[in-house]
Amino acid sequence: MLIHKYVVAVDWGTSHLRAFLCKVNDDKTLTLTDNAKSLGVNKVVNSFEKTLFDCIAPWVNKYGKIPVFMMGQIGSSIGWKETSYLPCPTSLEDIASKCINFSCNDHDIVIVPGVSCRLSNDNYDVMRGEELQVLGWLQQSSQHSIGTHLICLPGTHTKWVLVKDGKIELFKTAMTGELFDLLINHSILIKKNNNATFDLCSFQKGADFTLKSELGSFTHGLFSVRSKQLFGELTNSQAYSYLSGLLIGSDVRAAMNAEEWQLSQIGDVSVIGENKLSQQFSQVLKAHDIKMKIYEVSEITLLGFNAVYQQFIALPSSK
Amino acid sequence: MLIHKYVVAVDWGTSHLRAFLCKVNDDKTLTLTDNAKSLGVNKVVNSFEKTLFDCIAPWVNKYGKIPVFMMGQIGSSIGWKETSYLPCPTSLEDIASKCINFSCNDHDIVIVPGVSCRLSNDNYDVMRGEELQVLGWLQQSSQHSIGTHLICLPGTHTKWVLVKDGKIELFKTAMTGELFDLLINHSILIKKNNNATFDLCSFQKGADFTLKSELGSFTHGLFSVRSKQLFGELTNSQAYSYLSGLLIGSDVRAAMNAEEWQLSQIGDVSVIGENKLSQQFSQVLKAHDIKMKIYEVSEITLLGFNAVYQQFIALPSSK
Repeated sequence: MLIHKYVVAVDWGTSHLRAFLCKVNDDKTLTLTDNAKSLGVNKVVNSFEKTLFDCIAPWVNKYGKIPVFMMGQIGSSIGWKETSYLPCPTSLEDIASKCINFSCNDHDIVIVPGVSCRLSNDNYDVMRGEELQVLGWLQQSSQHSIGTHLICLPGTHTKWVLVKDGKIELFKTAMTGELFDLLINHSILIKKNNNATFDLCSFQKGADFTLKSELGSFTHGLFSVRSKQLFGELTNSQAYSYLSGLLIGSDVRAAMNAEEWQLSQIGDVSVIGENKLSQQFSQVLKAHDIKMKIYEVSEITLLGFNAVYQQFIALPSSK
Repeated sequence: MLIHKYVVAVDWGTSHLRAFLCKVNDDKTLTLTDNAKSLGVNKVVNSFEKTLFDCIAPWVNKYGKIPVFMMGQIGSSIGWKETSYLPCPTSLEDIASKCINFSCNDHDIVIVPGVSCRLSNDNYDVMRGEELQVLGWLQQSSQHSIGTHLICLPGTHTKWVLVKDGKIELFKTAMTGELFDLLINHSILIKKNNNATFDLCSFQKGADFTLKSELGSFTHGLFSVRSKQLFGELTNSQAYSYLSGLLIGSDVRAAMNAEEWQLSQIGDVSVIGENKLSQQFSQVLKAHDIKMKIYEVSEITLLGFNAVYQQFIALPSSK
């Protein structure tokens, strides 16, 4: 791969394609200069190729051929080209060395592989895309590569990632965001309301309900979203916040009680995600005396992409 | 209400209308003679009136005016006419006396009210329609009206109903069936497969996963439905059974640990529901040494309707 003046990072998940144009500085570090959006892997109607090049057309028109680095579900069995999952523990070097690359429209295309792990209960877990934030977080401070840390990446699927001595040790997925979407769009719990606003008190009520009960009560507690509305304890709009609290509370509760780590022996939990969601997770963590620190997701992602990019272009095979 | 030769019972829920034509015997007991189906409350496009009378038209044509007793969501805020929930503890006599009745097309229409309760955690719970099975079960044996019993009514929403000395004491709802439908139809867990067949081993694996773990693991365990497929541990068809086991396991686990009752101090759990689902709940209960007995749902429902009917026609106001 020749050195270019620009490079594109594409986070291509199930629901969205997010493209970032980066300028390659003289010292080969990257500076974000523009971004664009398009359809997720599940929603592409034409080919992946057309979707990608339509999305980045303004940049190609202006700067010519640009290498494109893609991560996320685009590298899965339902994506463009499948990359194998890298088993944990794994590092930046492992991930960069297992990228696959091919040529398309004379552009160099690189797909970053996902990561898998096997948990103590014999279950597998997988991620594609979120590993970039973990790698970025590792770059953010040299202290992050020493000792054991827990990273919380809230989103459609929350990922709780245990990092040990600079490597991704293991991780667990909770379908918190997806469950929220399913329940507000398709269940009898709540009447659709596009104008629902966040209500902190209802959110905390929901979180406390799952966190303070002996058992988590998720299965037998979910219906309270509806019954509390029927009995005037929640408005329809408040019910959204209550449900969100109930789900995030359930997610945090499982992390507090996970067999794979002990929060008391880990320093701050690092929360990296979309701002509103990060705040909500932090609220619940703080309410239960768990120390945490929020990181700005776009900054961390760019650091991660920068790290993968530097490693990749330094590989003998990429030259 | 004059005495008729026939009477119709309508269980009109969110998704389905199920109508049952019953012959009134000389001793006023009922014998089921025919049944019919139509659209649930949520799916009605014309009026409720037209949907009902289209559905029972063959019976009306043959037998003339027939009283119609309705229960379920048809009596809710999204139904035809709203009936208030009767607070627990409540009995057959209370329920029959709070039926509302009106005339439509010169037919007597009766709507049976739903039931509500307040739980020890201050949550409300509600049911509409399932109370008929509980009343039927109480009729099934005189022993059922003595002491404390637990009834499990699996369905779209599982209801766990505590009966004490012949009254409905309290109950809890779990959205087990609805969650299963949401997850197989709308989530990334599983690819749609209309030909999936039940696999006992995968079902048990799922149930054990939520029942044997310290925490229930629902939130952090659900994603295993997908990861086990990715790693070849489950076929797509087996994943359906695994998910079903996971959800039913989670439901039974919450019942085993409920604050409102202690299974060890209750005799057999009475399971009343559609046959396949009853078998699945029983499987999980048995595997965890919980004694249970399955009752035939249509027989129990008819007993319940019979009981409400007898009470209702004996009321001074209905004559």
